[in-house]
Amino acid sequence: MKTINSKEQNQEIILANHPSGVPTTDTFKINDIDMPAIKEGEVLLKSIYVSVDPGMRGFMNKGDDDAAGNKFELNKPITSRTVAQVIDSNNDDFMIGDIVHGRFAWQKYQSVSVDDMEKVDPTLAPISTAVSMLGVPGLAAYFGILNIGQAKKGETVVVSGAAGSVGSIAAQIARIKGCRVIGIAGSAQKIAYLENDLGIDKAINYKQVNDMEAAIKAACPNGVDIFFDNVGGEMFDAVFANINRHARIAICGQIADYNEANPPQGPRPMHALIKQSARMEGFVVYDFKDEFDDAKQQIAEWYNNGDIVYKENLIEGFENIPDAFIGLFSGENIGKQMIKVGEVAENQK
Amino acid sequence: MKTINSKEQNQEIILANHPSGVPTTDTFKINDIDMPAIKEGEVLLKSIYVSVDPGMRGFMNKGDDDAAGNKFELNKPITSRTVAQVIDSNNDDFMIGDIVHGRFAWQKYQSVSVDDMEKVDPTLAPISTAVSMLGVPGLAAYFGILNIGQAKKGETVVVSGAAGSVGSIAAQIARIKGCRVIGIAGSAQKIAYLENDLGIDKAINYKQVNDMEAAIKAACPNGVDIFFDNVGGEMFDAVFANINRHARIAICGQIADYNEANPPQGPRPMHALIKQSARMEGFVVYDFKDEFDDAKQQIAEWYNNGDIVYKENLIEGFENIPDAFIGLFSGENIGKQMIKVGEVAENQK
Repeated sequence: MKTINSKEQNQEIILANHPSGVPTTDTFKINDIDMPAIKEGEVLLKSIYVSVDPGMRGFMNKGDDDAAGNKFELNKPITSRTVAQVIDSNNDDFMIGDIVHGRFAWQKYQSVSVDDMEKVDPTLAPISTAVSMLGVPGLAAYFGILNIGQAKKGETVVVSGAAGSVGSIAAQIARIKGCRVIGIAGSAQKIAYLENDLGIDKAINYKQVNDMEAAIKAACPNGVDIFFDNVGGEMFDAVFANINRHARIAICGQIADYNEANPPQGPRPMHALIKQSARMEGFVVYDFKDEFDDAKQQIAEWYNNGDIVYKENLIEGFENIPDAFIGLFSGENIGKQMIKVGEVAENQK
Repeated sequence: MKTINSKEQNQEIILANHPSGVPTTDTFKINDIDMPAIKEGEVLLKSIYVSVDPGMRGFMNKGDDDAAGNKFELNKPITSRTVAQVIDSNNDDFMIGDIVHGRFAWQKYQSVSVDDMEKVDPTLAPISTAVSMLGVPGLAAYFGILNIGQAKKGETVVVSGAAGSVGSIAAQIARIKGCRVIGIAGSAQKIAYLENDLGIDKAINYKQVNDMEAAIKAACPNGVDIFFDNVGGEMFDAVFANINRHARIAICGQIADYNEANPPQGPRPMHALIKQSARMEGFVVYDFKDEFDDAKQQIAEWYNNGDIVYKENLIEGFENIPDAFIGLFSGENIGKQMIKVGEVAENQK
């Protein structure tokens, strides 16, 4: 245990109460806990960056039976995508000092099976991006635009939820590929971010528009070749009404609040799919697991070249994780919300 | 005009009245007309086989504005897919005796631009199949199962409208590719035809089933990998509820009665598409124009080998075209309805 600063108190943040509506400080509780013993074959992790996402709210409901097994249990630590450092190892493949990421508990220190983590290459980009730009959100953007969307120069691409962690990268990859890119978002600040900072051709504030179908038509005089959909519902219908022949519609795994037992009703898309010989395809990033390394390399290269802008909204301090999460529902923050909860020990690498 | 038997009276069948409900004999009128003069660059055709399809009913409505320009005008000849022989030619690419097909008027003789026809290779299969098994229906089946569906040995394929001219070929091509094939149809006679004559693994009579979703589940214990949909609506939903991961759903251009202005409502498919990383794709055969010749060659080979069974229901006599068409809506005929209206002049070839 030579690598743990023995003066630091280990802590956890648990789900203290099921929230109703927007979570409050009562939803969570911070406890002092013992420093964990490292188990056989596991590694001891120190949390460095914790990611919070609005989608986690759905896992906090009482009795919510989530298919992906993401439900949080009362009085157990919350989990979320986290970047951590190995500070002790009982596994030959992981060395002290290695940076890893995975869905870890909100704990300063924890012993974790190596099956539940992946190594982070710190030479690619800042290590915090391992759970954002180089993690599931960035990979979803990459494979959605390139593998599902088959984006080609000169095509028109519409991205819904364009200021989000997936949408903002999807829109930029489409722009890099020479497409005309239209982003949909929900605030003037986000519109300015998309048009000015990310170089998106046109951004539409759906809250300021009465007729989305007409707004898309006006923004896409040549029709829509690729639709990267993060939202669904009536926004889907408005964009879908403008698709071109041979359009590709990437249905991204980030659509919130779809209730599997009772899918919402909407216009059947079959007739338009036939008329336009168009394709609608769902995907999750793990469909493309074999291409992860290449994709991360490419995204990192674009990021380091300045072709992709990726913003983080960084808060410091383990105890501030609950406030950072709660803030997702009130603020108009742009950029991926991250909490820095520890320092990387450079001398261990 | 040496090639026309001058004793034969040319005739046409026109749309005399817009039908309401099922067409009647009053819907049509047969007129004696003059033998046509062959125009510059055109060819003079003698009709041999006329095809009638239920889908033509939609083009007979008053003021029905069909996107594909298929609407029939009052007091003008009906048109349908027809196999004809060139009996005089003002075009160097078409010789007297050539067999052609196209959407021609219900006339015994007519002069037609060569842009509106394709040559038939009489060595492939009986020439009547040029507008059925080797025409749009057969090609839709071929490209839907192979190009859209990407059928692979051991996969489970469901075909709706399986006893129809498209579905029956789609089901057989899937069977040839080593798939387990489940067909859906609407009569005991059709079920027997599918299982006994076409060698389909299992056929489901949807009129005898209360819970189609459960029936599909029972017939597809390993789930559905490919769904070739000719029908849509609730039958789509029942099959769709059983799709596997990476399922492909070919939405065929044969779905009847979709009203483009007001598409019917149904459960939104996005959530299931994401969950299963599945694909829904619309198509028309002309998307694959470059592959037509290869496809026809392959279908004809399967037909001549006995791997594909293709039945025609043949009626003789030009004057019987209306009755043959009307019969589509009352009968339980199995096989493509065709009318033989003339003899091929073998000596002209």
